[in-house]
Amino acid sequence: MAITVVGSVAFDSIETPSGRQERCLGGAATHFALAASFFTEVRVIAVVGEDFGPEQQSVFDGRSIDTTGIEHVAGKSFFWEGSYLENLNEAKTHNTELNVFATFEPKIPEAYRDSEFLFLANIDPVLQRRVREAMPDVKLVAGDTMNYWINDHRAALLEVLKGLDILLINDTEARVLGGDKNLVKAARAVMALGPKLLVIKHGEYGATLFQRDAPSSTFKAPALPLEEVVDPTGAGDSFAGGFFGYLASQKELTPASYRHAMFYGSVMGSFAVERFGTERIRALTRQEIDDRFELFRALTHLG
Amino acid sequence: MAITVVGSVAFDSIETPSGRQERCLGGAATHFALAASFFTEVRVIAVVGEDFGPEQQSVFDGRSIDTTGIEHVAGKSFFWEGSYLENLNEAKTHNTELNVFATFEPKIPEAYRDSEFLFLANIDPVLQRRVREAMPDVKLVAGDTMNYWINDHRAALLEVLKGLDILLINDTEARVLGGDKNLVKAARAVMALGPKLLVIKHGEYGATLFQRDAPSSTFKAPALPLEEVVDPTGAGDSFAGGFFGYLASQKELTPASYRHAMFYGSVMGSFAVERFGTERIRALTRQEIDDRFELFRALTHLG
Repeated sequence: MAITVVGSVAFDSIETPSGRQERCLGGAATHFALAASFFTEVRVIAVVGEDFGPEQQSVFDGRSIDTTGIEHVAGKSFFWEGSYLENLNEAKTHNTELNVFATFEPKIPEAYRDSEFLFLANIDPVLQRRVREAMPDVKLVAGDTMNYWINDHRAALLEVLKGLDILLINDTEARVLGGDKNLVKAARAVMALGPKLLVIKHGEYGATLFQRDAPSSTFKAPALPLEEVVDPTGAGDSFAGGFFGYLASQKELTPASYRHAMFYGSVMGSFAVERFGTERIRALTRQEIDDRFELFRALTHLG
Repeated sequence: MAITVVGSVAFDSIETPSGRQERCLGGAATHFALAASFFTEVRVIAVVGEDFGPEQQSVFDGRSIDTTGIEHVAGKSFFWEGSYLENLNEAKTHNTELNVFATFEPKIPEAYRDSEFLFLANIDPVLQRRVREAMPDVKLVAGDTMNYWINDHRAALLEVLKGLDILLINDTEARVLGGDKNLVKAARAVMALGPKLLVIKHGEYGATLFQRDAPSSTFKAPALPLEEVVDPTGAGDSFAGGFFGYLASQKELTPASYRHAMFYGSVMGSFAVERFGTERIRALTRQEIDDRFELFRALTHLG
């Protein structure tokens, strides 16, 4: 079943201990769509400026990604510059230029309306809510957010959370949003705000799935021990793409589906960080995904 | 098969967000022995002062723990005072009194000499080495250490590492000892110093087993998501006790034995933190251990 995703398509300039990359195509919707496209059809809603040309479009071409909903307007695309020199788990932002994103009004193409899955990537919760309300018939809605929205746009974010089935955030975000240092208590507080399922991503320590109505069904996916994390940008969005893409590919959602989705999320996140930007995911094959899935199984199963 | 453990038997005064406990029996050898005694016979080498009386002895009694090697001398036992008010993952030490430990000369009782397993708990590497050399015929030697020895007694510690089969340390210790921020590279550097196997404990994120001669056999055990960590003191020693105790209980050590040992280590660590000091482990039953092992399986296995 098809997923509609709304989020940023952006240019990123990134510096990590492995090097520096100027203006590579990024943005949450880009990373999510590429990862999810290995599992199902993805439809993107975003806005780009005149600097988004055929080279950028080619990142999406030849995949099961519908870009009809990427609006082209006058001006420059969203631009982000950041580094991970001190800490690979947390980006230091040097520059953010919203550009065309400052006046973004998401429009949903008619052909997207039968999407059964909706992913609200990390953008202004006002926009997330607008898209959610414009697609009332979707079967499953997942979303992401960040500390900026949690701290400074809490009221708008709380409205979004009410309409979410699944929220994917990291440790720090969960602690701040849930108002508790303890992750289990924070998770419970977050799920009381709306989401039935909560995925907390722990970076190099994997991720945990909490279930509001089945506290004993908590499930953990590992992260792959990697010798080099070239670029963490987009790892969380790639996790979300693998997780939600897998779910959307299933005829029926069973408890086992969610466990497998957690593994596919971790698998896609582990590939994403191996090279700068979207480079690794673009070069990926389905066979590599399946092989790594088995690696994750060996890493965690008693056998 | 029996394990001989050398390490501290101490009094701990501990403050955590859950409360404060004065002078409860602790020490690495105590926590290790109690946890391991659920799996095999444990023989303790340590020194205590006149403040160690029948009440303290009763902690070991009625279990498969031989305390012949706990030497009683004039003076006061090792005393540690610390708190975890800011961070449950790292103790803040307020006071350390070595007392009788300052002049400790480990003596190995004759009845301990046929032990096939040896655990060198976290003490001065000079003492660890002395015990290791006095027991040349053991089948498997594991040990622990801490940043103080890594930083200020490195030469002595390196001698110990040469004689270790398995080292169990935490993330920070691994990064410092291995000289690399990346855990996979740090692990490789640490194993080049001697240990064939390395267990890195990640606190609330579980633990990873690295194998020098089988890099693809890395294995991860989760930690249990807990709503309240009452007292983290001794969690690492309890992990080591469950891990090494299980190994010592096995007729043959297969790759699967090590994976199961990782789970039993995590299980014992998860119990240890539920109450102050040794309280939870002392009240534990084998059935509870087995039930929690199954909980860990459900937490990680795709099913």
